[in-house]
Amino acid sequence: MASDWLDRIHWNPDGLIAVVTQEAGSGRVLTVAWANREALQRTAETGEAHYWSRSRRKLWRKGEESGHVQKVRAIRADCDQDAVLLEVEQVGGIACHTGRHSCFYLELRDGSWVEVDPVLKDPETMYGK
Amino acid sequence: MASDWLDRIHWNPDGLIAVVTQEAGSGRVLTVAWANREALQRTAETGEAHYWSRSRRKLWRKGEESGHVQKVRAIRADCDQDAVLLEVEQVGGIACHTGRHSCFYLELRDGSWVEVDPVLKDPETMYGK
Repeated sequence: MASDWLDRIHWNPDGLIAVVTQEAGSGRVLTVAWANREALQRTAETGEAHYWSRSRRKLWRKGEESGHVQKVRAIRADCDQDAVLLEVEQVGGIACHTGRHSCFYLELRDGSWVEVDPVLKDPETMYGK
Repeated sequence: MASDWLDRIHWNPDGLIAVVTQEAGSGRVLTVAWANREALQRTAETGEAHYWSRSRRKLWRKGEESGHVQKVRAIRADCDQDAVLLEVEQVGGIACHTGRHSCFYLELRDGSWVEVDPVLKDPETMYGK
């Protein structure tokens, strides 16, 4: 596949772009992560979401350990080409390493963050520890 | 309002956090922008989305020029507290400075970015130029 589309991305000084991942159907925003050029290229080529792990400093195929792969239905970019939106099917229904559906499980209520979504699976089980 | 919740945010080295803004009801992701502490505090206090404009280096009340204000229905944070999700009602139905509903109007098709959403309002009209 030609990669001209990758040349149109405005990478930040670290060579990364912010990636919002949204569940097809429900519309739930699952995660915000980062991709470098290779991660985005592999996402397009394989149809599975790849990111750049800033903490581990490595390419990361989402679900490589947990099995909770994200199957990509669409890839969008914004007007400034400095953010990407992935529309995905979330295998296993769990996107968060805490075992929740979405990483955005904290909601601001009366000036405090409250956990509003349940843990669906024990993280220790998810990662086989 | 107490601001302990702001102390739990993991600001990046520039004092910013990525903010994904999603339309209530439709679930459409409208924008990805950035907020500093003041922007997030004002968002919570006023119920209208405020961001930090990195290009103009100033606090920015969304819609201050166009009238396309975002009325905030919920504020969420993710598991690492390094991204925020705003659920908003988009006044005027236009979030993008190009006059489109969402900033994510480019979709990757056959290796090229294609504009898949229409311009709803001429930007020159929007900004009164």
